[in-house]
Amino acid sequence: MAGNVFGNLFRLTTFGESHGAALGGVIDGCPPGVEIDLEAVQIEMNRRKPGQSAIVTQRKEPDEVRFLSGIFEGKTTGTPIGFVIENTNQKSHDYSHIKDAYRPSHADYVYDQKYGFRDYRGGGRSSARETASRVVAGAIAKQVLANVKMYAFVSSVGDIHLETPLEQIDFSLIESNPVRCPDIATADKMEAYIKEIRKQGDTVGGVVTCVIKNVPIGLGEPVFDKLHAELGKAMLSINAVKGFEYGSGFEGAKMKGSEHNDLYNEDGTTKTNLSGGIQGGISNGMDIYFKVAFKPVATIMQKQETIDRDGAFVEMQGKGRHDPCVVPRAVPIVEAMAALVLADYYLLNKTYK
Amino acid sequence: MAGNVFGNLFRLTTFGESHGAALGGVIDGCPPGVEIDLEAVQIEMNRRKPGQSAIVTQRKEPDEVRFLSGIFEGKTTGTPIGFVIENTNQKSHDYSHIKDAYRPSHADYVYDQKYGFRDYRGGGRSSARETASRVVAGAIAKQVLANVKMYAFVSSVGDIHLETPLEQIDFSLIESNPVRCPDIATADKMEAYIKEIRKQGDTVGGVVTCVIKNVPIGLGEPVFDKLHAELGKAMLSINAVKGFEYGSGFEGAKMKGSEHNDLYNEDGTTKTNLSGGIQGGISNGMDIYFKVAFKPVATIMQKQETIDRDGAFVEMQGKGRHDPCVVPRAVPIVEAMAALVLADYYLLNKTYK
Amino acid sequence: MAGNVFGNLFRLTTFGESHGAALGGVIDGCPPGVEIDLEAVQIEMNRRKPGQSAIVTQRKEPDEVRFLSGIFEGKTTGTPIGFVIENTNQKSHDYSHIKDAYRPSHADYVYDQKYGFRDYRGGGRSSARETASRVVAGAIAKQVLANVKMYAFVSSVGDIHLETPLEQIDFSLIESNPVRCPDIATADKMEAYIKEIRKQGDTVGGVVTCVIKNVPIGLGEPVFDKLHAELGKAMLSINAVKGFEYGSGFEGAKMKGSEHNDLYNEDGTTKTNLSGGIQGGISNGMDIYFKVAFKPVATIMQKQETIDRDGAFVEMQGKGRHDPCVVPRAVPIVEAMAALVLADYYLLNKTYK
Amino acid sequence: MAGNVFGNLFRLTTFGESHGAALGGVIDGCPPGVEIDLEAVQIEMNRRKPGQSAIVTQRKEPDEVRFLSGIFEGKTTGTPIGFVIENTNQKSHDYSHIKDAYRPSHADYVYDQKYGFRDYRGGGRSSARETASRVVAGAIAKQVLANVKMYAFVSSVGDIHLETPLEQIDFSLIESNPVRCPDIATADKMEAYIKEIRKQGDTVGGVVTCVIKNVPIGLGEPVFDKLHAELGKAMLSINAVKGFEYGSGFEGAKMKGSEHNDLYNEDGTTKTNLSGGIQGGISNGMDIYFKVAFKPVATIMQKQETIDRDGAFVEMQGKGRHDPCVVPRAVPIVEAMAALVLADYYLLNKTYK
Repeated sequence: MAGNVFGNLFRLTTFGESHGAALGGVIDGCPPGVEIDLEAVQIEMNRRKPGQSAIVTQRKEPDEVRFLSGIFEGKTTGTPIGFVIENTNQKSHDYSHIKDAYRPSHADYVYDQKYGFRDYRGGGRSSARETASRVVAGAIAKQVLANVKMYAFVSSVGDIHLETPLEQIDFSLIESNPVRCPDIATADKMEAYIKEIRKQGDTVGGVVTCVIKNVPIGLGEPVFDKLHAELGKAMLSINAVKGFEYGSGFEGAKMKGSEHNDLYNEDGTTKTNLSGGIQGGISNGMDIYFKVAFKPVATIMQKQETIDRDGAFVEMQGKGRHDPCVVPRAVPIVEAMAALVLADYYLLNKTYK
Repeated sequence: MAGNVFGNLFRLTTFGESHGAALGGVIDGCPPGVEIDLEAVQIEMNRRKPGQSAIVTQRKEPDEVRFLSGIFEGKTTGTPIGFVIENTNQKSHDYSHIKDAYRPSHADYVYDQKYGFRDYRGGGRSSARETASRVVAGAIAKQVLANVKMYAFVSSVGDIHLETPLEQIDFSLIESNPVRCPDIATADKMEAYIKEIRKQGDTVGGVVTCVIKNVPIGLGEPVFDKLHAELGKAMLSINAVKGFEYGSGFEGAKMKGSEHNDLYNEDGTTKTNLSGGIQGGISNGMDIYFKVAFKPVATIMQKQETIDRDGAFVEMQGKGRHDPCVVPRAVPIVEAMAALVLADYYLLNKTYK
Repeated sequence: MAGNVFGNLFRLTTFGESHGAALGGVIDGCPPGVEIDLEAVQIEMNRRKPGQSAIVTQRKEPDEVRFLSGIFEGKTTGTPIGFVIENTNQKSHDYSHIKDAYRPSHADYVYDQKYGFRDYRGGGRSSARETASRVVAGAIAKQVLANVKMYAFVSSVGDIHLETPLEQIDFSLIESNPVRCPDIATADKMEAYIKEIRKQGDTVGGVVTCVIKNVPIGLGEPVFDKLHAELGKAMLSINAVKGFEYGSGFEGAKMKGSEHNDLYNEDGTTKTNLSGGIQGGISNGMDIYFKVAFKPVATIMQKQETIDRDGAFVEMQGKGRHDPCVVPRAVPIVEAMAALVLADYYLLNKTYK
Repeated sequence: MAGNVFGNLFRLTTFGESHGAALGGVIDGCPPGVEIDLEAVQIEMNRRKPGQSAIVTQRKEPDEVRFLSGIFEGKTTGTPIGFVIENTNQKSHDYSHIKDAYRPSHADYVYDQKYGFRDYRGGGRSSARETASRVVAGAIAKQVLANVKMYAFVSSVGDIHLETPLEQIDFSLIESNPVRCPDIATADKMEAYIKEIRKQGDTVGGVVTCVIKNVPIGLGEPVFDKLHAELGKAMLSINAVKGFEYGSGFEGAKMKGSEHNDLYNEDGTTKTNLSGGIQGGISNGMDIYFKVAFKPVATIMQKQETIDRDGAFVEMQGKGRHDPCVVPRAVPIVEAMAALVLADYYLLNKTYK
């Protein structure tokens, strides 16, 4: 119950620090008989991995997954799927600058306060490197969900916003550029801006939007475990996330009921979809869509004043290779977490049939 | 696991439909020896109950709580606290208009699809009447947390926004007006607007902001159970909520790291608080603050076209007494859910000592 | 997580002290559309209630259940089923003899040590009166399981044992006598012995055996949540239980593999059933059977020396009306707990289909 | 929720098949700052491993644990402890005899029925090889519990029973002989009997007794999560276990209350300990003791008739190297499961302070 387990029936447990021996996890509850495409898993890993383009961190990690159990003759057996990703890049860096000092807006200080002790090498457990395990599990969840399709993409970088309405977006363009924005012109602007920010030794935040198609009607449990509540928790659990909205979101709070209500077609679909595919916490078969806000990366290549363990002021500057903007690499993580939620709620919903 | 349980160690289970015999719940895991102020519980109930002012629904429900166990000689015993709120207002209304037809942007359609059967009387389990049980449990959680103070208030109604910076807000004004907005001039505008909306037979959305003070350092579990992820889930589980952001929120996604980082003072507090009191999912002792977006109530007093169980178009118009805007009554619910999360994470954090 | 919740998907939460206002519980996860026979629920309650025969406690409690939610037009809706049993017999007894002294082999001492405070009226939460709520939920679970049949009965009282082999037992005789032993001659001996024990102001232990028929193949999760492991926990959670064995049990530990193995028939059934209907933690379709050992009731009508809160020796003697032997009234409780486990694992198993 | 997770706050998730790439697990919730003696972990592993003496299976598995996370500079960090045990002995055996036929009293048949598909190599997930991961986690739990001492030993093999009263046992003799029976004469008899049984190509069952000393008062949650109920589940989840009893156990069911009650000393200890160190589900500070019955291993070196996937009768005989009696190797597994339960309940109990 220390927070490293996600899901009820399709349940992921992860372990691993950024600079320990390895990361990994266990997926418990994956249904038996699902044919697993291991290449598809690695493709997701490659979308998240460092060094994939000029606008992300230039660290080199192959991020290769080794499955240890639960898959036999190419199919899941219904037993837990254990997997490991070795940390091949854990050279003996010099961590003296962060061992005894607290990086601003990082978790160093609170870890020391909570645990009295921390693995200070590169963020340890609080590093976003942990999300590699989520992407593995999400890639398996996607294969469980087969027909459900998840399309996450970058919709904002700083003040540059994708203006295309959701229903006009060509999702096939997402992977056409390193920003993962499905509009080439906007993607170009974003890319240029990220490069400029990096030159300044600075970082910038952004927004990832996700659209999920072909969701069966009926996923989600009323009251506390509403589908969007669990999606919200899933997204807010990703490093650097500051906000989540679905359907009409914060804009919906300004609207009137007469404008906001989604009227029905005869087949139970709705003419509009301000509800975002979920009513009363239960999927209604329309597209689910939501936005996830990411703050700028806290590690900047500029000098900042901070404090050490004794509360004395010290000066600190980021070292190593960091992302100037996380959203391009966050896209597969958002999809992975969405897949984990949907696979879990899909299994939960089976118990009613 | 059907979604009616919230929390890990401080755990609330609720039951009850809007027009059934009674609502209620069980709080399991409340620490022993906490003196319970029953009047304080009822005050929270009164803040949520219908009929309290001219701008909320005019239904009459006394919403009196009867505690059945777990409290002895004025103190909690550590055993489960069972409680019941009788539904005194469940007259034999005419529900024929919603029995076989689906109210737009309500859960009627998905309940029928998911369960094959529903209690059609006034929303049944999907009614916000369920939140009465949350307010009871939240009021107990507040007493467990003693020093932690929660201040929720209305910060937007439609396009009318409270402009006062958080640090200048006088929380003592929250209960001074029926809107629960801690700025009298803004509250007046909001009240007038809600009355106008009601005259139109329409409804409007709004935003509730919540500030939490005196949170101990160390609450929150890294990775999946980050404190803000659980707060987000808690808020998104409230009826009509479409979005959640904490700290810098969606605005933070536009910022640079050099602007967004919170620099430390020598005592471990920070000079700014864009982090919103949480770093890496763990409370850092600064104020926690977040915003919750509520959509407009779906039941409007205007005619809308919808479909019946057979997929035939029918006309429908809201009957009975409904809230033109939910945010004034949502204020105590937001506080209650925040209290449940904090009490739970407070107990979890004890296991590390 | 304070131990008042049982089950994963079919989940019971109970509350209530023996002398508080009321007992009750919430069943979350009951599938929708199950027709509920309320009379059948009350029949189970009557099998457990005090005062039903000359060999059980002569306390009078009507033990009437009031359902508050989750059942509509005679059928479950899939929403939580809340229920309450009022404590009508909570007169102002004199508890001074147990308020400050610890009854031997009762939970008084450990409650005070654990919680620092206890409801001393008649056992409070540690009273077996709590099992009334389990019987309500078990009666609902039985209706969910429909075809599965549970037959618990008394197989031992002190040194008097039922010798009939399991396959020759006529289950229709269980309710023919107050002991609930399905052999009239043995039942008579047991009854006479219990009466003699009561005259001595003493109590005696016993064993309940349970046979479950028509269990679908496949219930049970390998490794930690084996079907018999959960059944064992369920039984050991009943007040006064000291042991659990299934299939060949402790006798099986003396046997050779060549004697113990159950050989298959061509249809997958087995020629013998030393496995007790479960292999590798998963039901194999054969009868499940197990034994549950109950210690003698700790409250005796004889003087015993004990200590008070200050550690001083005091003399104590049981007051009021107590069971000289719990097993006759434990029979419906054993069935109820078995039904809760099977309903839960039945739902879990649906997620694999 | 597929049964591969054990514990609430100190939580173990395991994965791995007997003939897959590796076994392993994740311990979530281990408190920070615990110094870990890795050699002590390996010693426990060696007590469980095959090939350690002439009376256990002669398979060779080094069973070396590799820790991947959660331990830094020799101490736990409070983050999850991931570990892996490579399967070095997974040669390309011939499994054709069990691929399509069902070994009697094994889980082959029910796995095929439940999952429609199974890893048929040597038992797959249902192999007791999985318990290697439990022993790793148990060894960590023991170090968390520091002062609590667990002494499991073999008390019966077939009809040969250790007759020494519990309080006279010299626990230092447990590891003095390959049977792990703390009485040399009895151990010799047991060893000779096991060898004889093996010559017959047969197997035999046995009983493991466990005594736990220095348990703090107050562990255990009343009602469903009684300490002995969780211990019972833990033990019943071990492969081949058919029964569990604690304190007076099944013998207690024959006794009178006047014989069975444990009277208090002035310091709150009891003069006798028929309760087995637990009252009302909560530890009372006296020694906890319990017995665990193991059936004979199902794989025998004699011909047995069984059925294949098509329901046709086939003849089958055990191949490879199997244990003639599991109890000597079960001793460390019983201790490990006991340690997991106690560590978990120790953390749970901290939330009341």
